[in-house]
Amino acid sequence: MASLPGIGKRTALRLVLHLLSRDEEQVNRFSRAFTDLKSGIRECEVCHNLSDHSRCSVCSNDRRDAGTVCVVESIRELMAIEATEQYRGTYHVIGGVISPMDGVGPNDLHIPSLVSRVESGQVNEVIFALSTTMEGETTAFYLYRKLSPLNVNVTAIARGVAIGDELQYADEVTLGRSIMQRLPYENARGSQ
Amino acid sequence: MASLPGIGKRTALRLVLHLLSRDEEQVNRFSRAFTDLKSGIRECEVCHNLSDHSRCSVCSNDRRDAGTVCVVESIRELMAIEATEQYRGTYHVIGGVISPMDGVGPNDLHIPSLVSRVESGQVNEVIFALSTTMEGETTAFYLYRKLSPLNVNVTAIARGVAIGDELQYADEVTLGRSIMQRLPYENARGSQ
Repeated sequence: MASLPGIGKRTALRLVLHLLSRDEEQVNRFSRAFTDLKSGIRECEVCHNLSDHSRCSVCSNDRRDAGTVCVVESIRELMAIEATEQYRGTYHVIGGVISPMDGVGPNDLHIPSLVSRVESGQVNEVIFALSTTMEGETTAFYLYRKLSPLNVNVTAIARGVAIGDELQYADEVTLGRSIMQRLPYENARGSQ
Repeated sequence: MASLPGIGKRTALRLVLHLLSRDEEQVNRFSRAFTDLKSGIRECEVCHNLSDHSRCSVCSNDRRDAGTVCVVESIRELMAIEATEQYRGTYHVIGGVISPMDGVGPNDLHIPSLVSRVESGQVNEVIFALSTTMEGETTAFYLYRKLSPLNVNVTAIARGVAIGDELQYADEVTLGRSIMQRLPYENARGSQ
């Protein structure tokens, strides 16, 4: 128990004592849940999302637009975007960012599978939803070079002052980009 | 002294005792600075920015693009945008937002002077850099209705996930708008 993140020796002891007080059947069921977790959950063969089938709930949903693919680093970002309930396309989880310092190169990420999805001709638009760190920008640029010869629109999510944030407290880089990437008022209003 | 914001009785006493220890000439100069402040600083006749002449340092600068006008609530936002060193146009400080609850109507703001600037025909674009509060949105919509019959482009600053912010921690409204207002990757990169 103490091997889990955020659980120290004292908490582990408390949890184990709790389990010992339960009857055997309950403990077995608890134990089996972990085995099932590992054997039952796998990666979606299309987008590398978590899934309990060969295709995840997004890729297998007919009402999602398979022609639009949003590139994210990990399942956390995918879940954050799903929580907005605004996006109707599909995803591609590349599983990290290019980071030579950490020994992560393009071949360690799910980039070839993204390129073949685009090469299949069924993708109209690839949206980069990557971090604005050095590694995230490098990854976006690498992907852009890979994808731009193919017949696909490459876009990136908008960056700017967060909704409800006061301009005077926004950082200068963000505020500067917000102004330089201004958009027609009708469009800004329309998407609320 | 204690009438100033953020200065209590004890601090006021400390400051007054400090002034008493200075010689008379220094205190007179200190005193005169306040009179000069009130009599020397006025509003720019064009944009209502603070100024020590009839036109502020932005409006009187030939290298600023007078055809682009950024509408801000107060001088604080103007100073925040100036600090980015990205914006080359001019401003219009309307002096607040429409807020019926606080008794602020359109006629209490510097809106007529904005409309006449646009009517003069020398303005190509008006950029709204207003708060995304209810009052800010109402003000933007009111201005839009006033300006749209005139021959001028009306734009708004981009809203989205702040530069460097992780997507998983962005609020859902902002992240949703970031995705719906995505832009071509070339443009997103170009303005960095």
